[in-house]
Amino acid sequence: MRKFVAHRAKKLITNATASLLNPHHQSSSSSNQYYTSARLARFFTSLPSDTSMASDKSTPPLTVDSLNPKVLKCEYAVRGEIVSLAQTLQQDLQANPGTHPFEEILYCNIGNPQSLGQQPITFFREVLALCDHPTILDKSETQGLFSADSIERAWQILDQIPGRATGAYSHSQGIKGLRDTIAAGIEARDGFPADPNDIFLTDGASPAVHMMMQLLIRSEQDGIFCPIPQYPLYSASIALHGGTLVPYYLDEGTGWGLEVSELKKQLETARQKGITVRALVVINPGNPTGQVLAEENQRAIVEFCKKEGLVLLADEVYQENIYVPEKQFHSFKKVARSMGYGDKDIPLVSFQSVSKGYYGECGKRGGYMEVTGFSPEVREQIYKVASVNLCSNISGQILASLVMSPPKVGDESYDSYFAERDGILTSLARRAKTLEDALNSLEGVSCNKAEGAMYLFPQVKLPNKAIKEAEKAKKAPDAYYAIRLLNATGIVVVPGSGFGQVPGTWHFRCTILPQEEKIPAIVTRLTDFHKKFMDEFRD
Amino acid sequence: MRKFVAHRAKKLITNATASLLNPHHQSSSSSNQYYTSARLARFFTSLPSDTSMASDKSTPPLTVDSLNPKVLKCEYAVRGEIVSLAQTLQQDLQANPGTHPFEEILYCNIGNPQSLGQQPITFFREVLALCDHPTILDKSETQGLFSADSIERAWQILDQIPGRATGAYSHSQGIKGLRDTIAAGIEARDGFPADPNDIFLTDGASPAVHMMMQLLIRSEQDGIFCPIPQYPLYSASIALHGGTLVPYYLDEGTGWGLEVSELKKQLETARQKGITVRALVVINPGNPTGQVLAEENQRAIVEFCKKEGLVLLADEVYQENIYVPEKQFHSFKKVARSMGYGDKDIPLVSFQSVSKGYYGECGKRGGYMEVTGFSPEVREQIYKVASVNLCSNISGQILASLVMSPPKVGDESYDSYFAERDGILTSLARRAKTLEDALNSLEGVSCNKAEGAMYLFPQVKLPNKAIKEAEKAKKAPDAYYAIRLLNATGIVVVPGSGFGQVPGTWHFRCTILPQEEKIPAIVTRLTDFHKKFMDEFRD
Repeated sequence: MRKFVAHRAKKLITNATASLLNPHHQSSSSSNQYYTSARLARFFTSLPSDTSMASDKSTPPLTVDSLNPKVLKCEYAVRGEIVSLAQTLQQDLQANPGTHPFEEILYCNIGNPQSLGQQPITFFREVLALCDHPTILDKSETQGLFSADSIERAWQILDQIPGRATGAYSHSQGIKGLRDTIAAGIEARDGFPADPNDIFLTDGASPAVHMMMQLLIRSEQDGIFCPIPQYPLYSASIALHGGTLVPYYLDEGTGWGLEVSELKKQLETARQKGITVRALVVINPGNPTGQVLAEENQRAIVEFCKKEGLVLLADEVYQENIYVPEKQFHSFKKVARSMGYGDKDIPLVSFQSVSKGYYGECGKRGGYMEVTGFSPEVREQIYKVASVNLCSNISGQILASLVMSPPKVGDESYDSYFAERDGILTSLARRAKTLEDALNSLEGVSCNKAEGAMYLFPQVKLPNKAIKEAEKAKKAPDAYYAIRLLNATGIVVVPGSGFGQVPGTWHFRCTILPQEEKIPAIVTRLTDFHKKFMDEFRD
Repeated sequence: MRKFVAHRAKKLITNATASLLNPHHQSSSSSNQYYTSARLARFFTSLPSDTSMASDKSTPPLTVDSLNPKVLKCEYAVRGEIVSLAQTLQQDLQANPGTHPFEEILYCNIGNPQSLGQQPITFFREVLALCDHPTILDKSETQGLFSADSIERAWQILDQIPGRATGAYSHSQGIKGLRDTIAAGIEARDGFPADPNDIFLTDGASPAVHMMMQLLIRSEQDGIFCPIPQYPLYSASIALHGGTLVPYYLDEGTGWGLEVSELKKQLETARQKGITVRALVVINPGNPTGQVLAEENQRAIVEFCKKEGLVLLADEVYQENIYVPEKQFHSFKKVARSMGYGDKDIPLVSFQSVSKGYYGECGKRGGYMEVTGFSPEVREQIYKVASVNLCSNISGQILASLVMSPPKVGDESYDSYFAERDGILTSLARRAKTLEDALNSLEGVSCNKAEGAMYLFPQVKLPNKAIKEAEKAKKAPDAYYAIRLLNATGIVVVPGSGFGQVPGTWHFRCTILPQEEKIPAIVTRLTDFHKKFMDEFRD
């Protein structure tokens, strides 16, 4: 019965193409065709109906000028020019040792702890390895190599995966059992219910942020409120999606405080310009600033979003990174719920990642967003966008469930897990303090405390002569400083201009991640460099 | 020396905001400010300069109507309505066994082999597990659990990763050593050089496709040539990026042949409509059609792209899935190079994924694109977009290197690897043939051979009565057929209208992936259903 309808099909192609290329043209023939055209038409973005437009007879060659201008506009300083220079220097160091005044490049540009020697949490890696190769689970040698609770946890996780297939695409929001675990972890953290159906597992927090920007931004008239300084993922994502970044300034003078009066003022200004501000991004703990918001402040922010109809996009990826006893992390969802706002009262997205915290598993690309306060119809659209990429990677999904449900008192791994975790966090707190003190001892440098996150963002008062020299080199003055620092010491930092800063002020972002034994040498090298730089340029 | 410039900063904010919100406004004060404003301005998409526009004083509530219309337009049938129905039925089967005329849902909607029982390749999983938990590498028990060559390979890979840190963000194109391995694999496959700097490792092929669409599409005047039927990632991605899908029809009558005459005709039509066609997508082996292009045909396609200035986007994710002795896979790069076209002659992107082939590691989200023929400036823009997401997941990166460099003759794992691989591929070929024959034996059904990939795409001549019944149910007729099939048998297929088809023809896509022992039951259930369906509706 292999009979082809080739002839009939060929005849239909001409009609079909006409309707495809212009969905407004509806086939007048059979109802079969109507259905197909209507359905197919949804595939194709409608074309301009003005067919009198001059026909362009050749596709121009592919040049930068013919690329999507939104791509050209996008900037991402964390991996920009200075990092390229660092990579070149590193190759040079390997090829010609001893040709630079330092022996290694210290990447303080990015929150990438394991690249600087931080070891992964053993329990997490045990579980991941067992889930990757489950056939060893019931071998006797495995009990000699892995902790009993990692074996038990791996079994639990495998039982949550349909067919125990860790190599299968999952549900597009992530494996349901893992979302149950994460929701339980959020409940334990906040003391308020969390719904596994609100969780979307993602390849790190970045794709989740892109997904929300894609959903919210219709044109450059749509604005997204972002802190200045901000993590440049936001400016990059807004540029890529063709929206407008509406800035609000954090107040350096009050430890990078977030003032609602500033939000009000900037919202008013943006609205006067015809911008529809759709969402407010808050990064807490702050990146690059390291501040941790007070609960009181968070309440005012929630109230502001509620009143102004803004979606609250809460970047909470540093929730485990708090270094001062007087501050605590409170999720925005907990704050909103404790104010009496339920799921229907305020649209709120919380981003979490396995790349940060004490685990720092950047290479695993795991994370999730918890999406609350959206209508079922809007949620369906988020699900659809998630489904186009099928699912996030399963190892990342498993790890996201592990960080929200680590070993508990009484588990075989608990003591070693606790020691590893505590060792990392207390060491980070010490490193933050040492670097902060060192920076504050430098001429013309002032640095707020890193209450949380992984960064210091010192302000440097650059002498006018240095600024003039930077102008000559066609660099922003802080970029000029950072390049000079790199060439002199091998330390890679990101200039403040990559994050945004009050005009006329200059900063850089420096992670607190180099291993503790290296910190004294970094302080010495940084101090020597800065003294020489100031001596060279002092006004 | 902790001195804040709070007062000065506050005064500057007003000026700064003005220049931020309107980059055409240049600060007239110090050169410091000029630099900052200029640099910061690049963060922000320029606002409409017409400030006379009416100020919108309130952000409207978040509804579907206020979402990005490009998101609303996007469709992805592989995980659409029918899959949701299947999930509901599955839950129902678990809660109330025996209430449906089948015992399990058979997901033939998606190329997800391991979800249907295919086992992962042991060697690949051994290496992944060892790289996840390297501390066991030098334990004696490990030698009892893992093959010697997997241990050796894990060491090799760890040595390629700076600091052996599998938990660190990598270079944004992927770990250099892994790209070296992949490039060597491409060279061995094609007999032409491959450059590791041309490789971009990605979380599966989907993000790579999105990246290219993002780069190429400026507006709906930009068109991307796609086959009809096509894999709906392309229509979805083009819709999300606001471009126009320009269709070319594969000829069902000649085994889904790709005719250059059809390309020429459709290009002409599109250009007459004012569309700049920027790229040509070719899926080889075909999805959903299963055809494998002849080398002769590929040469004509390369020549066409060269002449018309089109970027050739070659979806080659099924390169390992060929089931007929008379056909072979040839990469488009090999074909172009064998025609004498070098790197500067034709822009060409090849997409590869760990989700397909004999390995079918969908959940690992690994893949790469090989980007050739682009200027350094354009490549820099691709790198920038890749860098905004930092890097793809490291396990996926490792796996992408493994599938391009599997065990070789003489390696301890070679025999078992070969047996696993050969078992899967020969079984898939048998399953394809059995299902194809079964489909062709059905009344009104004709099905081309699956020469490659993982799918059959039979055409079903639906009786007019069935079409009328579908109309009443407000479904496309092929969707109506698929829903009836699912409700009667538990078999999930995707209606042809999800991929595009010649108007007036109806198809569905069915994977060849159910385990071989289940195929007879599937054939029986499908045959019974189809007979009853035709009996119910026969004209």
